[in-house]
Amino acid sequence: MIRMRREIHLEPDERIDDLERSGYGIVQKPRGFCFGMDAVLLSGFAQVQKGEQAVDLGTGTGIIPILLKAKTQGQHFYGLEVQEQMARMAAKSVYMNGLEEDIDILLGDLCRICREGSRISYPRIGAAGPDTQAELLAGAFDVVTSNPPYMKGAHGLQNPGEAKAVSRHEVLCTLEDICAAAGKLLRSGGRLYMVHRPQRLIEIAEALRKCRLEPKRLQFVHPFSDREANMVLIEAVKDGKSQCRVEKPVIVYQEPGRYTKEIYEIYGY
Amino acid sequence: MIRMRREIHLEPDERIDDLERSGYGIVQKPRGFCFGMDAVLLSGFAQVQKGEQAVDLGTGTGIIPILLKAKTQGQHFYGLEVQEQMARMAAKSVYMNGLEEDIDILLGDLCRICREGSRISYPRIGAAGPDTQAELLAGAFDVVTSNPPYMKGAHGLQNPGEAKAVSRHEVLCTLEDICAAAGKLLRSGGRLYMVHRPQRLIEIAEALRKCRLEPKRLQFVHPFSDREANMVLIEAVKDGKSQCRVEKPVIVYQEPGRYTKEIYEIYGY
Repeated sequence: MIRMRREIHLEPDERIDDLERSGYGIVQKPRGFCFGMDAVLLSGFAQVQKGEQAVDLGTGTGIIPILLKAKTQGQHFYGLEVQEQMARMAAKSVYMNGLEEDIDILLGDLCRICREGSRISYPRIGAAGPDTQAELLAGAFDVVTSNPPYMKGAHGLQNPGEAKAVSRHEVLCTLEDICAAAGKLLRSGGRLYMVHRPQRLIEIAEALRKCRLEPKRLQFVHPFSDREANMVLIEAVKDGKSQCRVEKPVIVYQEPGRYTKEIYEIYGY
Repeated sequence: MIRMRREIHLEPDERIDDLERSGYGIVQKPRGFCFGMDAVLLSGFAQVQKGEQAVDLGTGTGIIPILLKAKTQGQHFYGLEVQEQMARMAAKSVYMNGLEEDIDILLGDLCRICREGSRISYPRIGAAGPDTQAELLAGAFDVVTSNPPYMKGAHGLQNPGEAKAVSRHEVLCTLEDICAAAGKLLRSGGRLYMVHRPQRLIEIAEALRKCRLEPKRLQFVHPFSDREANMVLIEAVKDGKSQCRVEKPVIVYQEPGRYTKEIYEIYGY
């Protein structure tokens, strides 16, 4: 059950969904881009230790920082989002859950991280007051997370500016941009956690290595035990040595319409 | 049951094991290097079409060409082995199974493939007569298979010249040598099938791509459904486009000491 710590105002096309964790909820637009199982699996795969700082690149509704706050003992979380409407919705969720001391939602383009110096300044969305400024510091992060757009380019898109399109297609940033931003923000030994499509695994590994990020742990997600994987969870370590573990497979459905025990556990039901 | 098509002479330390396929057997030394589940899984993963030519790099006892002959409609198979004792044993198995028209066992170093021109000449082991010469032609193969040594270098080895050591450690050839040889022997669009350790997956993908071999299909093998993978099967296509499938996981044991149905099927029991 959701425990609303603060009153928020919902737009007519917004609704609040229950995250089944710590009484947290999330504001989403059922007609816009809602978080998927990928974000939930990534938040279960990512390891944030006590006292660590994490940043989520392309945070969308803010689902990943909010779930990581609920599941880990990380000290502070940032969510960077380029779409203003999304970022304001994420900040509203943070505020509603009483997490404004723990999570900062920043508005801006992650491609700036590589283009600019060692301090990159972004507007911090004020859910209950004016926006302020915040800085991301190069080499200062223990953890970077990202559930990036999976599809290459804007190929075949009718409305490449639409929120769903930006979340799913590499319209505003590419895989390489995300790897480069993560490589710059992470301290040596820091970890990037990413979820993506297995189809692009080889390309991802190459892009990561170019940014001194070594893939160290992979987990494949299969809809059924006899079907090919449709997601891959990746942990890459900055300046890590080349050696990779492939964890036990995650199987989503036991039978059509019925999740496996593991998925129920990850969702916290 | 083994159906011996030809009489062979066994050394005191050799024995014949049943392959449970087409009545074929294989000569092995129980105290030397015997084929493992990796070779059997690779022969099930590899796809050799009717009329195709395949070469197995580092064929050891010849297990892979013999299993592929039993399981596929490939036209001709070569097995290249650098250790003379092993190569002679492989040729003996080929002869015993009456496959001397279908499989040639060649003796020599696979590193020569890249160093020499477009025709690389090797002694063909005559199981029932003198050795002759055979040539491997660059760009002439539809399929290359390899179950290479998994361990990097000769680190920690007591007897780096011993047969087991050469089969398991990169003493006489490296991953890069095998990829380069495969890249040279395959026609454009031809496939390399390799089994290896997941620990080295990222490195393998990079080595393959350097030789114009694009990983297109991966399958991970887990001892139990809740344990990390200990083998990976890889299909790479020469000049293939970058897009990769991850097949359903192979689980070896249903419970300790009891194989899964799938493994029994692959073994042909």
